[in-house]
Amino acid sequence: MENSNLTLLTDLYELTMMQAYYHAEKMGRLTQYAVFDMFYRENPNGGGYSIMAGLDQVVDYIRNLQLTPDDAAYLKDTGIFSNDFIDYLKGISFTGDIYAVSEGTVIFPNEPLIRVKAPIIEAQFIETALLNIINHQSLIATKAARVLWAAQGDTVLEFGLRRAQGPDAGIYGARAAMIGGCHATSNVLAGKRFGIPIRGTHAHSWVMSHESELTAFRQYADLYPHDCILLVDTYDTLRSGVPNAIAIFKEMQEKGITFKNYGIRLDSGDLAYLSKAARKELDAAGFCDAKISASGDLDEYVITDLKAQNACINTWGVGTHLITSKDYPAFGGVYKLAAQTDQAGKWTSQIKLSENPAKVTNPAEKKVFRLYDSLTGKAKVDLVTLADEVINENQDITVFDPLAPWKRMTLKSGAYSARELLEPIFINGRCVYNASNVMKIREKAHNERETLWDEHKRLTRPQTFPVDLSQNLYDLKQEMINLIRKV
Amino acid sequence: MENSNLTLLTDLYELTMMQAYYHAEKMGRLTQYAVFDMFYRENPNGGGYSIMAGLDQVVDYIRNLQLTPDDAAYLKDTGIFSNDFIDYLKGISFTGDIYAVSEGTVIFPNEPLIRVKAPIIEAQFIETALLNIINHQSLIATKAARVLWAAQGDTVLEFGLRRAQGPDAGIYGARAAMIGGCHATSNVLAGKRFGIPIRGTHAHSWVMSHESELTAFRQYADLYPHDCILLVDTYDTLRSGVPNAIAIFKEMQEKGITFKNYGIRLDSGDLAYLSKAARKELDAAGFCDAKISASGDLDEYVITDLKAQNACINTWGVGTHLITSKDYPAFGGVYKLAAQTDQAGKWTSQIKLSENPAKVTNPAEKKVFRLYDSLTGKAKVDLVTLADEVINENQDITVFDPLAPWKRMTLKSGAYSARELLEPIFINGRCVYNASNVMKIREKAHNERETLWDEHKRLTRPQTFPVDLSQNLYDLKQEMINLIRKV
Repeated sequence: MENSNLTLLTDLYELTMMQAYYHAEKMGRLTQYAVFDMFYRENPNGGGYSIMAGLDQVVDYIRNLQLTPDDAAYLKDTGIFSNDFIDYLKGISFTGDIYAVSEGTVIFPNEPLIRVKAPIIEAQFIETALLNIINHQSLIATKAARVLWAAQGDTVLEFGLRRAQGPDAGIYGARAAMIGGCHATSNVLAGKRFGIPIRGTHAHSWVMSHESELTAFRQYADLYPHDCILLVDTYDTLRSGVPNAIAIFKEMQEKGITFKNYGIRLDSGDLAYLSKAARKELDAAGFCDAKISASGDLDEYVITDLKAQNACINTWGVGTHLITSKDYPAFGGVYKLAAQTDQAGKWTSQIKLSENPAKVTNPAEKKVFRLYDSLTGKAKVDLVTLADEVINENQDITVFDPLAPWKRMTLKSGAYSARELLEPIFINGRCVYNASNVMKIREKAHNERETLWDEHKRLTRPQTFPVDLSQNLYDLKQEMINLIRKV
Repeated sequence: MENSNLTLLTDLYELTMMQAYYHAEKMGRLTQYAVFDMFYRENPNGGGYSIMAGLDQVVDYIRNLQLTPDDAAYLKDTGIFSNDFIDYLKGISFTGDIYAVSEGTVIFPNEPLIRVKAPIIEAQFIETALLNIINHQSLIATKAARVLWAAQGDTVLEFGLRRAQGPDAGIYGARAAMIGGCHATSNVLAGKRFGIPIRGTHAHSWVMSHESELTAFRQYADLYPHDCILLVDTYDTLRSGVPNAIAIFKEMQEKGITFKNYGIRLDSGDLAYLSKAARKELDAAGFCDAKISASGDLDEYVITDLKAQNACINTWGVGTHLITSKDYPAFGGVYKLAAQTDQAGKWTSQIKLSENPAKVTNPAEKKVFRLYDSLTGKAKVDLVTLADEVINENQDITVFDPLAPWKRMTLKSGAYSARELLEPIFINGRCVYNASNVMKIREKAHNERETLWDEHKRLTRPQTFPVDLSQNLYDLKQEMINLIRKV
């Protein structure tokens, strides 16, 4: 709500660690470099994939890193930080490299989505905000894609602003929902900021504030004849709302108005029964192209169920469940150290163990390749490799499940193509990222989903998409595990 | 992330309705007034109460309503709005009255929390942002109060920024978590903005980035001897982390350092087993006042369970579950028309029916009284009345459940006191609200919870607190229902 300098949008421990790194080194000589990977471990909502979103805001945040005098004064007041360190922070900017998977890309667990290579002090500085932004937008984009899948080609509108977790959740949530495939949002500010379509008609209060429902509809239709979706459930959907809407459509017809987007909205009651009954009435009156739009606590499962029951609904307004990803409201993205320089400046790989083998991190600076079947164009497998590895498409390649190495698959030369997923965003602190507009990212996300088999996209119990490690990376990881466990 | 003018933070349908109201009246004469109530229908997480939060940001938002030239240009570009209406919007400000329950107050379903009385066009304008802000912060404050209840007096830290739904969700979520009772947050920007305590130490990456865990701990302790919580689970909690932490505490002891806040943090593994084992080791080494802090996917239920198992944990760092209210991520606040003026300027009450009797709105401009038992100081019942009703504490008062009017209770004169909950915030557009700082609101919320019996506060299946209607309001409501159903 205030002017949003987000430089201090960080967990305190990043700053206390930064000060410790700062004082551990000779003043002014911040020489320790590190590589951190941002990745996640599980797709939201039991899904088979996720959609990357939020990179644009991360880039903005990093470009605008700048400790204000106010920020410096506050840090001093905490009593935790030395003047030297605060002076250092005043001049801080990001000087490292960032590679990232572009927005709209289909992503999977356990592959690096953002790779940060920078002085460790800078890499820690950006951790929290980077996670906050990517976690939020990827969550909502992924949820939206699920709702769109359920809607089977129908129009889906994002209606959740009033239930979003604060203004940003509404604004950036609308952006992410568009990336995930929504056709428009009700959020005017998001429409303005991101150039995305906005939609909306009227509320129950509009009907209640007029002497009759018919008058309310008539006044609305007079002003908005070409975008006239009338909310019919204020008093009694079938006995009052639908007949009154039809009466208004007849008046419009008599006035010679060319219908464009017109119809009704149902916001309560049994949407299957009411939509079918309303469709019958509208058709009988000759308004076969009148839309029936539905809203009210919808999610991908309710939509699937209503469609299975042949509900006559063309447009789905999805609010709370989409804007909060209600059944899975946090994308579990993490940011882990993968390599660092030692005191001699030599790079060493780093690993974090866990009792759970799936949670042991992948060491070293890495790349990700997506391998596509040349015949179908469908993605076959993602392969995480060391940063210096290349894939020669003229050679056969054998990949294997790192948790069950006997599960192997060979792709024949000529039968596959490889695409590197991590693209340069910052090089030596210089931003080399080309922003794309949201509608372009949305189209990209649509095309990306086309590269997945439906088996990976269905809502429940989808087939797991394989994310494998190259033999070199696998060997390094085993070696490091053995070394630590031996100690 | 940009400069945050939130004037367009609204659903499009508010603007389309506003334009329709604008054009329906004679230009420039916007005479229709309305009363809207903001209320909610169900406590989050199956709880027995909620905590009001977010009013401060609503006041800010309303005071800063101002259509920028940019906003106006955008609205024009949409093609939906007339020049006249956009010119009107350029000059819009809020000119009405707002009464609200103050932040930190314990609240219940179906009572007005915010009452807006204004030209209907202005009342619609602020609906979406008002709901967005109050819904978010009340949700998180309420969740925090549940976590605090489970922690039974232990320290609770808000650690969720990286999993919050965007920057605002982190910042205002931290604010709300403090109101709900948390002792500090990791969120530095929230600390700065709201003057709330911040806390945090180091991450796994700190340990991984040193040649040994012992070196990492030593370096940290050297710099932060008085706030030294060491994260002990990077490699092996009991075989490496705890012994290394104890070694460092001994070194500190030998150096003659006065211990203040020191101890260990557990972030994985079985927290009951590990905390008890670590406690034994710490005690055996003479560090009986070393704190044991725990984090990692905690919520009120896990904390309750760990306490039931006598886990030796003093401090709980709660992240994802708190900052997203994970099991109930949307507070269902709504904003409903209760009264309006007709063309002659006369006030008429409004009601919205629903098939579900509990969802029929309460008509008319209203007040809310909370009645307290004079002997115990505990709250007995909330009574929603017409705006012109008064409660005379020198008379007996009989209240009844509006959905089961045979459930009656009489409070004897002298044995109860009444407090009006809705306080003036704006009068004729002038802000009369006195902002309070977050730590004061937190204290108030604490005292407010003390007025509830534990029966209303327990986590599961709490006793429902009664919210009744005055006889006059009840009669008006029945009359209006009968009138509409007769038609």
